[in-house]
Amino acid sequence: MATMIEERAAQAGAGPRAPIAGVWCPVLTPVYEDLLPEATRLVAHARWLLDEGCHGLVVFGTTGEANSFSVDERTDFLEAILEAGLPRDRIVVGTGCCALTDTVRLTRHAVARGIAGVLALPPFYYKNLSDEALFNSFDQVIQRVGEADFKLYLYHFPSLSGVPITPGLLERLGAAYPEILAGVKDSSGDWNNTRLLIERFPELAIFPGAETLLLPALQAGGAGCISASCNVNTRQIRKLYDDFKAGARDLAEQQERLNAVRKVLQLRPMIPVMKHLIADEQNDPAWRRVRPPLLPLPDAAARALESELGALGWRMGEA
Amino acid sequence: MATMIEERAAQAGAGPRAPIAGVWCPVLTPVYEDLLPEATRLVAHARWLLDEGCHGLVVFGTTGEANSFSVDERTDFLEAILEAGLPRDRIVVGTGCCALTDTVRLTRHAVARGIAGVLALPPFYYKNLSDEALFNSFDQVIQRVGEADFKLYLYHFPSLSGVPITPGLLERLGAAYPEILAGVKDSSGDWNNTRLLIERFPELAIFPGAETLLLPALQAGGAGCISASCNVNTRQIRKLYDDFKAGARDLAEQQERLNAVRKVLQLRPMIPVMKHLIADEQNDPAWRRVRPPLLPLPDAAARALESELGALGWRMGEA
Repeated sequence: MATMIEERAAQAGAGPRAPIAGVWCPVLTPVYEDLLPEATRLVAHARWLLDEGCHGLVVFGTTGEANSFSVDERTDFLEAILEAGLPRDRIVVGTGCCALTDTVRLTRHAVARGIAGVLALPPFYYKNLSDEALFNSFDQVIQRVGEADFKLYLYHFPSLSGVPITPGLLERLGAAYPEILAGVKDSSGDWNNTRLLIERFPELAIFPGAETLLLPALQAGGAGCISASCNVNTRQIRKLYDDFKAGARDLAEQQERLNAVRKVLQLRPMIPVMKHLIADEQNDPAWRRVRPPLLPLPDAAARALESELGALGWRMGEA
Repeated sequence: MATMIEERAAQAGAGPRAPIAGVWCPVLTPVYEDLLPEATRLVAHARWLLDEGCHGLVVFGTTGEANSFSVDERTDFLEAILEAGLPRDRIVVGTGCCALTDTVRLTRHAVARGIAGVLALPPFYYKNLSDEALFNSFDQVIQRVGEADFKLYLYHFPSLSGVPITPGLLERLGAAYPEILAGVKDSSGDWNNTRLLIERFPELAIFPGAETLLLPALQAGGAGCISASCNVNTRQIRKLYDDFKAGARDLAEQQERLNAVRKVLQLRPMIPVMKHLIADEQNDPAWRRVRPPLLPLPDAAARALESELGALGWRMGEA
């Protein structure tokens, strides 16, 4: 049975501005030795992810170390990867900064490039903001971007941003901008919150921020998941999604298998962990680089990681 | 008796690169109707603050809504207020951003303008960073700024940044850059932390982030305070500082008076509160403007604030 999201997507056609759904990967950002973002390696990785089954890619999310890059670095990088031919309708761009004018610049730039949508953190330096304050903030962004035809996904990641996306904010924004507000990435890790969002906002595409909640989210009417693990484990995550959509029951074991891998991946800082795995798999040490304040995975941690993943019989990219 | 800070300052001479001490004001940033920062009103306010007794000014701290402005807005604004003639040796510039390259640009720019120092937040998006990760981050900043002759103050504000400045980090940075690392603004509000820093790092200028800890900080050997309240209450804060330096005892009552005013000022979001007070005092409604995500003080809150301050017999700028 088609969900409201899918109906909306169908109504909107297959164009670049349809609401997104499925298994989306917040892509890691490879960097040169001087720590500038490196388009060539990103494009190769992105193509592999799409081949592996990602419905789409989020460029410059938390996993992409978005906030560790300047606005110019981010717009230049987006230009480079689009010029290389990555499919615009399968790309969402992270644009939420602390500074209003930065968020506006990034959003306007991405929207003008015809991408599928933007994923916006709230301004995250000041804390304890009211719904009214956050509504005003997003309202200013939308007004200044000055473009009616784009899809805005809000990014709820309270443990990093310290600024939650509340149901009250979603109600106000959805009422003011029903054609723009399109969904939420919920990285709270709290199933009760994800379920509440799915139930209360059936018109929005709600994505848990990890595949550990993929099955319950799909069962409740969620849109899929946007998960860091997709960088190394897309095929298995996509399989669960497809099996569910094909009407399969008894998917608990598949979900548990995903959970077991994720548990190991997130035992240590996930970005260095996944960059290490890609570096290893491609025999390309450059992939290990991260921007400060992150550090590459220490050798001892890498050995422990490999042993733990080995014990699960898991290898990157293998189904 | 001269503290180590004062000895260092004396040795360094009265030049712009001496460690700072005393009562410093993190200045509010007035904005135009389009929310760009407004140099003319800032310069007038800054001159009044220096006349009232501020030893110096921090431009683009938390109170100055620093993170709500883009890097270009911040460098342009600094240029404008320096061109207007504000004294460079009495200005510290906030430069800590999430993005390494932003922090480097702001720091290099401020240092090249000959200001007294920079006050740097750690990169504050990713959390649970090790001392090694933060050391590497500041090390990269210092190396990329490529200038040996500047003073770096670290900004500890865990309730907003979520990323504490630890004693372990200070030890490592101080060992690597003894001529650059100059002090800490401790906005934890936790006297035990401030005292620990003063005792453990006598070579650094330690400033509590509020005047409520000014007397205990001075008694323990701290450098003064860097407090938002200075925007409206410098004269009284400076008096306590001067009386202490003149050897007065029995200053507890003065400290309590400062605390009573501060308690009212921080009962509501302090930045809108202080902008409201300045707007009122100068009969200049433009001063009420704030950048998203902040909101101006609502009318009802303003009436309550005025009544509470009135009950204390306090008015802005009156000793």
